Amino acid sequence: MIRRFARVVLTDGREVFVEVGEEYAVLDGAPWLGGAVTGERLGHHAILRRRVPVAPGKIICVGRNYAAHAAEFGNEVPEEPLLFMKPSSSLLDPGGTIELPPPSLSVRTEHEVELGVVVGTRLKRASAEECAHGIFGYTIVGDITARDVQRREKQWTRGKGMDTYCPVGPEVVSGLDAGALGVRCYVDDELRQDGNTAQLLFGPCVLLAFISEAMTLEPGDLLVTGTPSGVGPLVHGNRVRMEIDGLGALELTVRASTA
Amino acid sequence: MIRRFARVVLTDGREVFVEVGEEYAVLDGAPWLGGAVTGERLGHHAILRRRVPVAPGKIICVGRNYAAHAAEFGNEVPEEPLLFMKPSSSLLDPGGTIELPPPSLSVRTEHEVELGVVVGTRLKRASAEECAHGIFGYTIVGDITARDVQRREKQWTRGKGMDTYCPVGPEVVSGLDAGALGVRCYVDDELRQDGNTAQLLFGPCVLLAFISEAMTLEPGDLLVTGTPSGVGPLVHGNRVRMEIDGLGALELTVRASTA
Repeated sequence: MIRRFARVVLTDGREVFVEVGEEYAVLDGAPWLGGAVTGERLGHHAILRRRVPVAPGKIICVGRNYAAHAAEFGNEVPEEPLLFMKPSSSLLDPGGTIELPPPSLSVRTEHEVELGVVVGTRLKRASAEECAHGIFGYTIVGDITARDVQRREKQWTRGKGMDTYCPVGPEVVSGLDAGALGVRCYVDDELRQDGNTAQLLFGPCVLLAFISEAMTLEPGDLLVTGTPSGVGPLVHGNRVRMEIDGLGALELTVRASTA
Repeated sequence: MIRRFARVVLTDGREVFVEVGEEYAVLDGAPWLGGAVTGERLGHHAILRRRVPVAPGKIICVGRNYAAHAAEFGNEVPEEPLLFMKPSSSLLDPGGTIELPPPSLSVRTEHEVELGVVVGTRLKRASAEECAHGIFGYTIVGDITARDVQRREKQWTRGKGMDTYCPVGPEVVSGLDAGALGVRCYVDDELRQDGNTAQLLFGPCVLLAFISEAMTLEPGDLLVTGTPSGVGPLVHGNRVRMEIDGLGALELTVRASTA
């Protein structure tokens, strides 16, 4: 059964996880931590705004996980998953604004739309089969990247980790088969990226197993699976729409630094 | 005034932050978040064990920040700080056990003793001078590294991020000048690393400013400033003692994987 979860700020000031249906059913905690419905049900009028629907202890991302994207930068397809991390300070709410860094730091911020996987159970040295049962659900993640900083600095920490560089949402969807979902990114209504999760070189379960060989994955941790080809620059004023079949649309705007 | 803070598990099961003196003064929260003394004071008998004295939202580390260490691997001194991250799942309590990965993953785990800096205020595009006022205190961090995995994989995520690879403690010390502190690592009582923070290529304030240019630092975030020369392998049964002048000693043991 497909279920949709969001995190919302209510008009009364509370911030809660909800299950999304015709109404919003308030939960008493994060659903991947066993949060259950409290019985309180709310209409649309009670929702002030959406927050990132995740609260990850860590965000592990994958580079060059679609052959066509590896090729567009002249990179080989990796033999093993290429992992990097984004800090929680880079998370951005649905409907949020990607803030371009000052030009002294970067003049090339790019969009990358990716399938996000929310971990549902503790996974330590787990097999891919075990990991299949350890997935809570899926969401849309923007792996926003300062391409010039990424290329200049040996490790991708700053180039991938800036504030607002990890938009997530609008919902986390459980019970969905993520094996062949269309993945698209529009900038100002122009289709820039158009891939399918069937093209992933390493799928979610293989990735989780590879990560869990080294580090324990905890419920709520977020895996970001890599981007299809078509990445490109964002500029001040752009409207970005990231879509994955069955997961809705993550809408964002872009603003030049005010610093 | 020098003050020492720890996180402890009490014999009654509670886990609390304390200020360490002749007795332990219980705080009502993390001291970098404004936690204040509750009035409850405890003797040594009330303390069951130490926990990591930090609770970082992110752990940002620096590579090749001592010239002699860069040279021991034949690396140039970097022109800018070389940043990477460790996940919170790699944190290890004082007195804890570094778990060597299975040989199929790594056969070379190495010790690196480092000065840790705990952030005290929110820092976003802050100057080095502003960052000097944004430091809460200092601690000892082990940047344990699977050297073979680090070399094999392009990004250092797994090689630096395995479970138990980030021991921290025993305390966080505020009010200390960290400009010229001896930094030592003993393995089975043999002195392996013997440096001084005066040799840091980029000091704490410059590092915090460099990081905060890209990502907002929050109170409690942990900066790990790099290791002096003398790094080397750890094997099953080793006892490790990491010392920094004024910060005490972080004692650890090493165990082969039981997986």
